[in-house]
Amino acid sequence: MSYSPLLVRLIDGLRCMPGVGQKSAQRIAFHLLERDRDGASNLSSALADAVSSIGHCNRCRMFTERDLCAICSASGRDAALLCVVESPADVMAIEDATGYRGMYFVMMGHLSPLDGIGPEELGLVKLEEWLFGGDVAELIIATNPTVEGDATAHYLADLATRLKVKASRIAHGVPLGGELEFVDSGTLAHAFYGRRAID
Amino acid sequence: MSYSPLLVRLIDGLRCMPGVGQKSAQRIAFHLLERDRDGASNLSSALADAVSSIGHCNRCRMFTERDLCAICSASGRDAALLCVVESPADVMAIEDATGYRGMYFVMMGHLSPLDGIGPEELGLVKLEEWLFGGDVAELIIATNPTVEGDATAHYLADLATRLKVKASRIAHGVPLGGELEFVDSGTLAHAFYGRRAID
Repeated sequence: MSYSPLLVRLIDGLRCMPGVGQKSAQRIAFHLLERDRDGASNLSSALADAVSSIGHCNRCRMFTERDLCAICSASGRDAALLCVVESPADVMAIEDATGYRGMYFVMMGHLSPLDGIGPEELGLVKLEEWLFGGDVAELIIATNPTVEGDATAHYLADLATRLKVKASRIAHGVPLGGELEFVDSGTLAHAFYGRRAID
Repeated sequence: MSYSPLLVRLIDGLRCMPGVGQKSAQRIAFHLLERDRDGASNLSSALADAVSSIGHCNRCRMFTERDLCAICSASGRDAALLCVVESPADVMAIEDATGYRGMYFVMMGHLSPLDGIGPEELGLVKLEEWLFGGDVAELIIATNPTVEGDATAHYLADLATRLKVKASRIAHGVPLGGELEFVDSGTLAHAFYGRRAID
C-alpha cells in the first residue's frame, strides 16, 4: 500500500531539500495540502522563477537575477577593500553587523578536495583576476573558523601574498557576552594567544 | 541590504513549510540554487500538480487525486470494520504493520476547540452517516495516545455507542523490545492497569 502517485511524487520532491527525510517530507506534504495550499502554490512559482532567473553576479558570485548584484553595482563602495566569504548569508550578516563599505567575493563553499571542491569550483580564478587588476589594497578573509574554513583561509592568504595584496583575517576569540568558564577550550586558547596590547 | 527580490521571494515561500524558519529557508534556498536546480524544478512542478489535483477521497477523506482512494475502491476489503485515524501516515503505518483488511476514516487532525477544529472540520458528519448506514460492525479508534487524541477517542466512542456500533481502541502499553525500567511512568501505569489474563 502506498500513497496516490501525485502524493508520492510530492513527497519525493520535498526530499531534495537538505535535512528533509521521508517522515519530514510526509509531514510537510500533509500540512501544505491540508492547511496551506496557497503557500504551496506560491512556493511552486517562487521555485520555478528562482531556478529560471537567479544566477551568479558576474563580479562577486553572489546570487542575483541581474548581471551584477546590488552591492557590486552600488556606487560609493570602497573598491580597495575586498572581503571573501563562504556563503551569501555571510554577506548579509557582515552588512547588518558592521559598517563595512567595501566589496565582497562569495565562494559558495569552502575547499573540500574529498568532495571534489577545489579552487576552480569556488571561482578563485575570478578572484585571482580581480586581485591582479590592482584595485584591491586589502583582502579580508572571513571564512568560518572550521577546519575547512581555515584551510581555505590559508589558500587565500597565499594567493594574496603572491599577488602582493595585504591579507587579513577576521578575529577569533571569546564572543561578547560569553563567560570564559563556558567557552570551549579551542576558542579560549585562540583568544589567549591572540591577545592584543591595550593602548 | 537584502537579497535580490526573487531570492527574497523564494526564502519567504519556503517558510510556509512547518518547522522552517528564516535560517533554514536561507540554507535550503542556497542549497537548491547552488547544488540542485533539477530537484528544485521537480519540486516546483510536483507542488503545482499536487495543489491542483490532489483532493480528499469522497468516502474516507484520504488524500487522493481520484474520487475514491485506492483502499476505498479496492475490492475484497471488509466493510464491517472501520478504523479511524488522525493522519494519512497512520493509514500507511497500519497497512504496513498489520494484516488489517477493513476500511479507514482519516480525520486529518484531532479535536482541538482552541484552534477552531471541531467535529465538522474533522468530517465527523460524514463518519456519522457512514456508521448510520449499518454496514459497520466495529469502529476501531486508532487516535494518538495524546491529550487531544484521547479526547477525540472519547467523542468517537460516544458517537459509535449512540449509533449502536461497537467501539474499540488500539491497546496502549509497553512497546515491544522496550525495557520496563526505561518506559515512562504514564505508559507503565497504563500497561499495568490494562493487564490481560493469560489464557
